[in-house]
Amino acid sequence: MADKAQIQEAIEVQGEEVRKLKSEKASKEQIDEEVSKLLQLKAQIGEDDGKHQFVLKTAKGTRDYNPKQMAIREKVFNTILGCFKRHGAETIDTPVFELKETLTGKYGEDSKLIYDLKDQGGELLSLRYDLTVPFARYLAMNKITNIKRYHIAKVYRRDNPAMTRGRYREFYQCDFDIAGQYDAMIPDAECLKIVYEILSELDIGDFRIKVNDRRILDGMFAMPWKEVRKEMVSEKGLSEEVADQIGEYVSLQGGMELAERLLQDQKMSQSKQACAGLTDIKLLFSYLQLFQVTDKVVFDLSLARGLDYYTGIIYEGFLTQTGIAAEAQNSSGAEESVSVGSVAGGGRYDGLVGMFDPKGRKVPCVGAEVMYKKNPKLLSQLQYCEDSGIPLVAILGEQELKDGVVKLRAADISRADLIAEIKRKTSEA
Amino acid sequence: MADKAQIQEAIEVQGEEVRKLKSEKASKEQIDEEVSKLLQLKAQIGEDDGKHQFVLKTAKGTRDYNPKQMAIREKVFNTILGCFKRHGAETIDTPVFELKETLTGKYGEDSKLIYDLKDQGGELLSLRYDLTVPFARYLAMNKITNIKRYHIAKVYRRDNPAMTRGRYREFYQCDFDIAGQYDAMIPDAECLKIVYEILSELDIGDFRIKVNDRRILDGMFAMPWKEVRKEMVSEKGLSEEVADQIGEYVSLQGGMELAERLLQDQKMSQSKQACAGLTDIKLLFSYLQLFQVTDKVVFDLSLARGLDYYTGIIYEGFLTQTGIAAEAQNSSGAEESVSVGSVAGGGRYDGLVGMFDPKGRKVPCVGAEVMYKKNPKLLSQLQYCEDSGIPLVAILGEQELKDGVVKLRAADISRADLIAEIKRKTSEA
Repeated sequence: MADKAQIQEAIEVQGEEVRKLKSEKASKEQIDEEVSKLLQLKAQIGEDDGKHQFVLKTAKGTRDYNPKQMAIREKVFNTILGCFKRHGAETIDTPVFELKETLTGKYGEDSKLIYDLKDQGGELLSLRYDLTVPFARYLAMNKITNIKRYHIAKVYRRDNPAMTRGRYREFYQCDFDIAGQYDAMIPDAECLKIVYEILSELDIGDFRIKVNDRRILDGMFAMPWKEVRKEMVSEKGLSEEVADQIGEYVSLQGGMELAERLLQDQKMSQSKQACAGLTDIKLLFSYLQLFQVTDKVVFDLSLARGLDYYTGIIYEGFLTQTGIAAEAQNSSGAEESVSVGSVAGGGRYDGLVGMFDPKGRKVPCVGAEVMYKKNPKLLSQLQYCEDSGIPLVAILGEQELKDGVVKLRAADISRADLIAEIKRKTSEA
Repeated sequence: MADKAQIQEAIEVQGEEVRKLKSEKASKEQIDEEVSKLLQLKAQIGEDDGKHQFVLKTAKGTRDYNPKQMAIREKVFNTILGCFKRHGAETIDTPVFELKETLTGKYGEDSKLIYDLKDQGGELLSLRYDLTVPFARYLAMNKITNIKRYHIAKVYRRDNPAMTRGRYREFYQCDFDIAGQYDAMIPDAECLKIVYEILSELDIGDFRIKVNDRRILDGMFAMPWKEVRKEMVSEKGLSEEVADQIGEYVSLQGGMELAERLLQDQKMSQSKQACAGLTDIKLLFSYLQLFQVTDKVVFDLSLARGLDYYTGIIYEGFLTQTGIAAEAQNSSGAEESVSVGSVAGGGRYDGLVGMFDPKGRKVPCVGAEVMYKKNPKLLSQLQYCEDSGIPLVAILGEQELKDGVVKLRAADISRADLIAEIKRKTSEA
């Protein structure tokens, strides 16, 4: 007798077959035949003898990582880690679960995606949904007002994940945040520079980083849209249909010059908070120019981020190419072309720490999170990943070229050979 | 008005004061006065205005790690990781939660300590209790019969933790396991060698590794204790009281010679499974002698390990010294002398993978887990931990001396300086 896992797999395959026939509008006879096979399979599960009833699987939306996948993860994390450390960040760790009330009221609508722990007669707990809220709780609890910290750890969301796109219910976030009082936009620009550096170094194809400001969005939504519509039709000669798309602003993309133009815009300039946002975007782009990252960073008024806690600048990094998912989970075993899309995001959240402080004292914060997803291109590129067996390695990547440095890495060398080995290496150079 | 967290702290301090006075049998007046203060504090909590009601804390039995503590953790993990890799292990990762039924029936009485997730309308899930059961599930699911794997990750137990001893509800385990068919006791001996190497390299004080065999324990419990008692009194001249301590065998400690002696023991030799265990212990010690680790490994018949899944050799590593816990959590703020005790453990579990396999196919496995606890001695020893700013480091530790190698590690060097730097280093050497 076939085992339960095999039968369940057969049921899934058979179910797919039935659905396919129905969508193809196959003959009733044909469909009935396949449905009957499906029912037979389902009956088999019911007739099981009670032995070895285990369904051998991981929880929905989660996965194991085998040694090869772990080697890739290590490589990716080392790149990210190297960037975070280069920017002078320290790391902290927080528990995987928090008091439920710590997470309450921080995520808006997304709160329904939080995993709760069962009430087993103690505190009410939830799995962390991101690393930002635990970070704010940590700052408030330890009365820290100034820190550059990174945190690479798993977070949990009861989402309906598209696993073929690398989305899971358990996934890693790599967070970098700057807390403390600084001149306006300096830490914000550093966070964008970090996203730029990491996406460049990971070498996962071309990317763009969209930037917007929460206050510009809020300002836009507060506008008297009837008047905006009238202006669009009468003054700018747009058709009424186009004008009805109140998201007209939202199609705007640009850089510093767009922020300047919008500051002159009659409607936009009526909103104090939109002006504050636009002024900050202008200042931000002046720093981004100094950092030489404006080739990939774009001011995009359509960018919105769901979480409640953002108060200023928001940003998101996107891969612009579609990749081939080597392990796309379709039943035919064929490869699927998938779009990975957003891979990093963040923004300014000046109010979050204050929500935890008994006296409401605010600690201004800004940060980026990089999502770790299964990446098809890297998967095929990095077949080796471990530096075993190679006694002395000089690493000369894009970043090292930029910085004018060479990374020198050495493995175990026998003591007797040490001097000779280094001398030989240096004389060869 | 003081905030809630401050008041709750004050309530705890005041509660302690009251208990102290009661235990000291202080005067009724004195106790009444302090009780009234306590009630006032409790009333304050009730009168709170509903604003900022957050209790700023981590979940019971969990803690944050600050950057200094993280640097120590990194140092410790690098040592452990280095040992695992030296022994040729690969790493895997599994989700933090499993289907509840995956954990069912694996931990005996300890099952009550498993954290369950709330039923939010999907699968029933539990947080992993160890890394061994998920590993067995992984092997069965992927039909892997041969692997040396390590896994460093957090596990969860709803224990009443003694946090001053470094015990928490969320803690790291560093697991190394060998799955597959090998000549008897070869992988078991390697696991013990790894515990020996790690405890030596971590330099956390003297240690012992106790070894026993599940079958010897089972054999002992199956013995006719009345006869054993009679024999002890009549033949060995022991007092009746001593003989009544049926745990007489259990006080025995030794090495290979003890296993040999017990194989001759009339009672012990009647149990087939005890004999099998003793024969394996003998063979194990012959390998341990070759590995030169018998100075710290002791055959100890008192050693028992709680988990249901062990089938053969079991072992546990203990620190023999008491340390000073720098952050002992007593109210006076004074340091406390604490015993860390068991820091590593493991054994052979030949039946576990078969419990997941629909056909019950067994995969013999053996492995060690090293518990990561806050370690007082390391805490004071490692104040720097990061190798930043030092361009070229030669590491010559105990292990490197033993292996006759030097670990050479280099940081970023400017390209222009590369040749000069290495030449300078080598000419100095």
